[in-house]
Amino acid sequence: MTGEILKIGIVGLGVVGASTVKLVQQHGELLAARSGKKFEIVGVHARSKGKYRGVDLSQYEWFDDPKDLVEKCDVLIELIGGSEGIAYDLVCLALSKGVHVVTANKALVAHHGVLLAQLAESNNVQLSYEAAVAGTIPAVQAVRQAFSANKISSVYGILNGTCNFILTQMRETGRDFADILKDAQDAGYAEADPTFDIEGVDAGHKIALLAACAFGVHPDFKSVHLRGISFLTAEDFVAAAAFGYQIKLIASASVHEGRVLQSVEPCLIPNESPFAAVNGAYNAVMVAGDYADTPMLTGLGAGGDATASAVVGDIVAIARGERTATFGVPVDQMKPALSYEYDYARHSYYFRFMVEDRPGVLADVSAILRDHDISIDALQQQDGGCDSSKDVACIVMTTHQALRKNILEALSLIENLDVVQGDVCLLRIEDNL
Amino acid sequence: MTGEILKIGIVGLGVVGASTVKLVQQHGELLAARSGKKFEIVGVHARSKGKYRGVDLSQYEWFDDPKDLVEKCDVLIELIGGSEGIAYDLVCLALSKGVHVVTANKALVAHHGVLLAQLAESNNVQLSYEAAVAGTIPAVQAVRQAFSANKISSVYGILNGTCNFILTQMRETGRDFADILKDAQDAGYAEADPTFDIEGVDAGHKIALLAACAFGVHPDFKSVHLRGISFLTAEDFVAAAAFGYQIKLIASASVHEGRVLQSVEPCLIPNESPFAAVNGAYNAVMVAGDYADTPMLTGLGAGGDATASAVVGDIVAIARGERTATFGVPVDQMKPALSYEYDYARHSYYFRFMVEDRPGVLADVSAILRDHDISIDALQQQDGGCDSSKDVACIVMTTHQALRKNILEALSLIENLDVVQGDVCLLRIEDNL
Repeated sequence: MTGEILKIGIVGLGVVGASTVKLVQQHGELLAARSGKKFEIVGVHARSKGKYRGVDLSQYEWFDDPKDLVEKCDVLIELIGGSEGIAYDLVCLALSKGVHVVTANKALVAHHGVLLAQLAESNNVQLSYEAAVAGTIPAVQAVRQAFSANKISSVYGILNGTCNFILTQMRETGRDFADILKDAQDAGYAEADPTFDIEGVDAGHKIALLAACAFGVHPDFKSVHLRGISFLTAEDFVAAAAFGYQIKLIASASVHEGRVLQSVEPCLIPNESPFAAVNGAYNAVMVAGDYADTPMLTGLGAGGDATASAVVGDIVAIARGERTATFGVPVDQMKPALSYEYDYARHSYYFRFMVEDRPGVLADVSAILRDHDISIDALQQQDGGCDSSKDVACIVMTTHQALRKNILEALSLIENLDVVQGDVCLLRIEDNL
Repeated sequence: MTGEILKIGIVGLGVVGASTVKLVQQHGELLAARSGKKFEIVGVHARSKGKYRGVDLSQYEWFDDPKDLVEKCDVLIELIGGSEGIAYDLVCLALSKGVHVVTANKALVAHHGVLLAQLAESNNVQLSYEAAVAGTIPAVQAVRQAFSANKISSVYGILNGTCNFILTQMRETGRDFADILKDAQDAGYAEADPTFDIEGVDAGHKIALLAACAFGVHPDFKSVHLRGISFLTAEDFVAAAAFGYQIKLIASASVHEGRVLQSVEPCLIPNESPFAAVNGAYNAVMVAGDYADTPMLTGLGAGGDATASAVVGDIVAIARGERTATFGVPVDQMKPALSYEYDYARHSYYFRFMVEDRPGVLADVSAILRDHDISIDALQQQDGGCDSSKDVACIVMTTHQALRKNILEALSLIENLDVVQGDVCLLRIEDNL
């Protein structure tokens, strides 16, 4: 830290970068009062120099080579994105030169968290990434600081605003996935290439980071069970509603017998769940601690201003001298994440499938379930309910908790029954929410 | 800080004190990993030595004079309570001796915050009080740290678990206040003397602390407009429900023209409000920041374990070396709180009153409202609806936003109308929630 001035370099000037510049310009006095330092942007860098970004950059030195900028600042704000390439190079360079790093880059920290934490801790600087998880919600601070007195058993989140927006629209309008996605893209709520969002990758990066902080284990993105939302149909929302459920993309991480189970997948949650009220672009995080019970945080999950709030909050903490290990415990005391086999976890499930409407169908299905130790909680059969044709029926059922292994075997056998038409839709029911 | 050991002294061994001891005993290894220090309780003190508290204290030195304990520790945990007397003396002594203080004592910090912050900051130690506000919710951390990049315009809270429990029960069961309070006392959810809770004093202390952190002003409890919940009747809940509202005890602090308006009072909030889903002993805090929008935090507001989670979380932060000014900005840079005159604030309101059921009544009421620039949003008149007798009618109406001054004058004139029987129930409608 150089005297009373905090020298800030910003690389990446997309929506979040522009909002961050605007915030620092607008709240200079407030930030100085709260942090004890005068924030000074000493330089900026982005791919394209000429582009207008809605904010006045003329007063800042432009660096064609961002490595030169690293040399000049106390804190590097990395808003380029991507787990490899220039973002990775710059963050490593900054940390190894004793420059603090604040980033919104979930992919980078999820993939290289251990190495980056080693660099940060051995150079006695801070690597802060509150903006990488759940926008305006202090999710990292919650698991790493606020609930640090607790043995945490699980963390649940609605961590992708794009997916939550699409799922909310599907439920409210009854329209299909592809339609809503198109609208979301036109309105700027979804990327032109939405793969990372709708396939759960983005939420997977985030839950891996929260799991690391909650359980003191290395971030382990590759072990996150990922399932996207593109297979969901309007019928699933109607059927779920009939059973008192909503469908949300739930990221979860929990400890079973000392091993960590992480998943991102669309789940049924009860209408009474506090997560059921989290709609549109909002995110939510719930932490189950042994002393803190299940506190929950909600807020806007994305957007320039919401993310800038988290970015600059991290800078204030650095300016105040707060130093917390990257993942809450020093990296040399973290354990490799041992992954719990999902097959051996027990959950309740929801099945929806079409059958030929003839005697004995239900007996065949019931026998398969019985043979796999799966007991039915509720069942609805609607003649032609999900289809205009009259000679098929739609079966929707929920089960009590069962081994996932058995559920998957039963699923496969049910799908192979002659009387079952098309795919079986299988969704986990998240009873804990 | 003495080497790798953090010496902790605990004064006050009620429910929270006992849970704090239990937590430190149970999670020694976890706390050491997360904080880098071994937590050692070097002594305890409470009023009565012999009492069994459900936790083994035999290994700790008992101090008859807690001042002697202060001399021995790095961090004093003050769980005695009360704004004056021994709690005040001990906290002052500790801070002036360079001992960090963690407290759950909202009254103490609300009344003496400026003096205590001066002591803490001039002695370069931390005064932490996360446990004083909203139990397990990191409310202080949210306004003081997480949203530090924002100009905060208002903070809303459901900050008293006892009141929220009672109001939830009144709504769900239709029973009267006194009945439910009695049950709550029998079940241990309410104190034998519940005055501080049900009259809003406890929530008032808490909102004064959040306002100080949010706005950088001296905590100003005496300016909080306090109104309790004991006047509410079962009929109010029915009438509010008919208009799509719930009744919650809302603590709020907001800035108007550079001045701060703080209040704790039962308010109507829309059924769709996220606060409407906060029931029973749960608390909630919502912060309106210019970049963070309106993030919200919910969790258990009281109880031994929930509060111990916050107490020990504060100790972890101290052990990690985190130093934040008591109210977010150094005390010598805080401003005295200039109080905004509530009379000149604009809100929507709800009126409920009984009238003789005869022609012209509504014309009289309407004329009074018109003369005070108050326009009606919705109105219901039920013949004998709120009473078994047939010659009276119950009028329930909601207004658009109006000056409180005008509302109170109109209220007084309406109460003085010959045709109006009994009191008029007036409640603020909190449209922002």
